[in-house]
Amino acid sequence: MSRLDVFINRMVSQRACLDHAAARTADFSGPVFELGLGNGRTYHHMRETMPGRDIFVFERAVAAHPDSTPADEMLILGDVRETLVEALARFGPTVALIHADLGGHNLSKNDAFARLVSPLIEPLLALGGLMVSSDRMYFERLQEQELPPEAVPGRCFIYG
Amino acid sequence: MSRLDVFINRMVSQRACLDHAAARTADFSGPVFELGLGNGRTYHHMRETMPGRDIFVFERAVAAHPDSTPADEMLILGDVRETLVEALARFGPTVALIHADLGGHNLSKNDAFARLVSPLIEPLLALGGLMVSSDRMYFERLQEQELPPEAVPGRCFIYG
Repeated sequence: MSRLDVFINRMVSQRACLDHAAARTADFSGPVFELGLGNGRTYHHMRETMPGRDIFVFERAVAAHPDSTPADEMLILGDVRETLVEALARFGPTVALIHADLGGHNLSKNDAFARLVSPLIEPLLALGGLMVSSDRMYFERLQEQELPPEAVPGRCFIYG
Repeated sequence: MSRLDVFINRMVSQRACLDHAAARTADFSGPVFELGLGNGRTYHHMRETMPGRDIFVFERAVAAHPDSTPADEMLILGDVRETLVEALARFGPTVALIHADLGGHNLSKNDAFARLVSPLIEPLLALGGLMVSSDRMYFERLQEQELPPEAVPGRCFIYG
């Protein structure tokens, strides 16, 4: 399996899991969080597939495609180790859907970061809310959920 | 259609067209050219799917993943406007397969670049050789070929 194969599987799985989680939380009133904007492709997809829902983007510094840059009031700038803590004070446990694609090329770094942010993410989710991640997360209470058929196991995770 | 959808279609189409062109030129003795290494995912795929074939990579400056960095003798460093001219002197019209993903976010810049390099690419192809591109090219003699079924029309092009 080439790096191109792995990458395509990851992107296809990310889309399938997001679409699945968006449908399952469609009736929730709480906001949606996107952790890490990157070039904004996934955020663009979330905006298209979840119109009318409040999608807050957490990012250190915006470097996205102009099409995919959030409005100022939907952008929460800073280090997620701080901004997620602040978000809990602001929103409480109301978030319908949290998506994170925090990963870079360094698998052990990604894993260390996933361990670090898991306890900051867990208390934010509303009851029945879902977390979609490209990396395995480390939650106390949230359980791994079944993936939709288009997703490739190990390339994306859903917790709820 | 979101930017994520477009991107997935482009990557899936690129892989399908490359695999198709690799199969159709499997018995050719001439080399394979990869124009633009980027992070090396596609080159990694080409090496995996075309073992035993000489794949030369044209790049201005290598910034690829370590897994996907070509050996020095397979790397042709410099501006393709010069290195493609030098390649014609070195290889003649012997190249079995040329792949190019030159495109960035700016569609009109991509198109201008495609017009610029098309006449430099065309004389390099062996008789029956194929060119796979993520952008529409401007050839005098080469014709657009039918895409394999997995490819999305407009997201990848095959010329031969």
